[in-house]
Amino acid sequence: MSMTIPGTGNVSPAPNKGGLEGVVAARTAISKVDGLAGRLIYRGYNIHELARTTTFEEVAHLLWFGHLPNKKELADLHARFVAERTIPEAVMQTIRRLPAQSEPMDVLRSAVSFWGATSISGQPTIDQAIAATARFPLFLAAFHRLRNGQEPLESLPELGHAANYLYLLTGQVPKEGHVRGLNSYLVLLADHGMNASTFTARIVASTESDIASALVAALGALKGPLHGGAPSKVQDMLREIGSIENAEPWLRHAITHGERIMGFGHRVYKTTDPRAEELREMARIADPEGIALPLRVEELTVALLDELKPGRRLYTNVEFYSAALMASVGLTGDLFTPTFAVSRCAGYTAHILEQVGNNRLIRPEAEYIGPMDLQFVPLDQRP
Amino acid sequence: MSMTIPGTGNVSPAPNKGGLEGVVAARTAISKVDGLAGRLIYRGYNIHELARTTTFEEVAHLLWFGHLPNKKELADLHARFVAERTIPEAVMQTIRRLPAQSEPMDVLRSAVSFWGATSISGQPTIDQAIAATARFPLFLAAFHRLRNGQEPLESLPELGHAANYLYLLTGQVPKEGHVRGLNSYLVLLADHGMNASTFTARIVASTESDIASALVAALGALKGPLHGGAPSKVQDMLREIGSIENAEPWLRHAITHGERIMGFGHRVYKTTDPRAEELREMARIADPEGIALPLRVEELTVALLDELKPGRRLYTNVEFYSAALMASVGLTGDLFTPTFAVSRCAGYTAHILEQVGNNRLIRPEAEYIGPMDLQFVPLDQRP
Repeated sequence: MSMTIPGTGNVSPAPNKGGLEGVVAARTAISKVDGLAGRLIYRGYNIHELARTTTFEEVAHLLWFGHLPNKKELADLHARFVAERTIPEAVMQTIRRLPAQSEPMDVLRSAVSFWGATSISGQPTIDQAIAATARFPLFLAAFHRLRNGQEPLESLPELGHAANYLYLLTGQVPKEGHVRGLNSYLVLLADHGMNASTFTARIVASTESDIASALVAALGALKGPLHGGAPSKVQDMLREIGSIENAEPWLRHAITHGERIMGFGHRVYKTTDPRAEELREMARIADPEGIALPLRVEELTVALLDELKPGRRLYTNVEFYSAALMASVGLTGDLFTPTFAVSRCAGYTAHILEQVGNNRLIRPEAEYIGPMDLQFVPLDQRP
Repeated sequence: MSMTIPGTGNVSPAPNKGGLEGVVAARTAISKVDGLAGRLIYRGYNIHELARTTTFEEVAHLLWFGHLPNKKELADLHARFVAERTIPEAVMQTIRRLPAQSEPMDVLRSAVSFWGATSISGQPTIDQAIAATARFPLFLAAFHRLRNGQEPLESLPELGHAANYLYLLTGQVPKEGHVRGLNSYLVLLADHGMNASTFTARIVASTESDIASALVAALGALKGPLHGGAPSKVQDMLREIGSIENAEPWLRHAITHGERIMGFGHRVYKTTDPRAEELREMARIADPEGIALPLRVEELTVALLDELKPGRRLYTNVEFYSAALMASVGLTGDLFTPTFAVSRCAGYTAHILEQVGNNRLIRPEAEYIGPMDLQFVPLDQRP
């Protein structure tokens, strides 16, 4: 059926810059994105210190409870995670029924929805936040094994969140370097202010809906290529560039022709994304040879933009070195965005709990720009 | 685990009134909610005329394509709906696996997610909008039959959307009066400006995610009692009041004690909700005896508020007579919100298509009110 959607071609962007850019939609004590200074703060702590020295569980504790755990609190939280590392049989059957070619983000969204339908009710609680965060890696790894013709594995209670996820995917207790790399990634991505998916989760929570509904909604938003769904495109680009020698001619051609350089630019950061800096260092440690090409591409892109598009400064965003780091720990391209979700689940649930703790329905207005006062014509008289 | 969520008790509402009240989040040519005049407009047409004379399919055509269909266009759209009235076997197996006590909104959310995982990819299209809208009643009715120990039914191609939904639920070709009542309901609820679930759908679409992700997110928001999830509470209240004689003492006590009267008040409408007026008339026709109590409760509530809380005017909202109308056509309480979704799917998909037709990522900002510059303390030195 061919069609035109009326009123779209001539719809101007919403007032101001559109897309709610610069509009404060909520107050939060969870994280601060300082786009001008290139700083990311989780409850008062700079992300740089957290990325190098804490585990994902410590950061989840920080986001949920507002302080870094001591050893006892951390052990308690680990025990809670371990206790929640189960997939209800009905959910597992659902995952088994999904075709092997399904997109992992669709699988995760469906598994969380189904888990919610069978296990979640009432207002969001911290128990449910932990239960959901513990299970995201399980749902994903179960599907990943099944699509590769392997049976899902049971979690190993002695492993932390990052290590257990890698174990469930591969069946191997992972190398320390891989665990450290993935853990840093999970720490760095765990929250990021009022991004589109977190905002989505808060809107759903603001209707007094349940935590699974809010998470499922967030996953739907994170899937989009303009949000979390494009890190594998960086890999595609690097593969196309192919070699350090080819980087300059390739980038010069792309920039001259106005093509998009993947992994550069962010709406909020007007300088280097602090997460990109950390991921670059992690990737450098994890894969000293593989990092050479991305490093050169970053350096050249900044220089060529200066030369060819003066004033149009772009910096690497979180996607650029995510791809390199994820690949270095053995994750395949279509697991990048779901692994982002494994991390961000901590932030989503912290925001959901903050929203319901002091709630008001989030319900904006629209400016109507369509026709008015049309004369109704009955069906049998319409031309 | 006992806990306090930090930074919630003392988080003030977001700037201004909070909840983005009065903030224009998008421009749209689909519908206009005129809260002061109590008018609802779909693409230029007043809802009153549409509710009395058009079918849901005509209104869906109006919302999607911008004009009311002529006979040929309507027949074409009906044929498209009929062709889409199938449940893929994998989705049906998923629905079968959900426990009978599952909430129908959770079932619908999961079925749409699973359907999306197996059937939907790429950017949203009008074909997908029709495919989703055609299937919402099928998913719901299949679950409803299964939880009652009955096998799901095949759709009847000669029936329109409202009639087919009733048939799939009951196994009976429905009475003309029931079809007319449900059809009017589906027309009246099909769109409503930038409400929380439609806004959610547009945010997800703005990330360039897929239509199933956007719909699943919207369903999560609609489920919340502050949005679509409370119409059965009106029935509970009417049941508690019980009789016309008991209405005045019950309401006087409730209002004096500051209790909430269900089905009254709306953030946008400062006068009668035009949908409530139409639903009242429909319910009056569908169930002349049953309507007596709700009519009396409405009349008394307005009068008692005037007497006891002068200046605090509240009017019936869409939920008040929805409950009466839905019950009069034979729908049970927990099908009210999912049936709202059956209707609103037309609006959601129209908004999703409008969003992607002229897209900008919807990504607001947050005001950070937490601590800054905390000194990081390593795990083994934390108190």
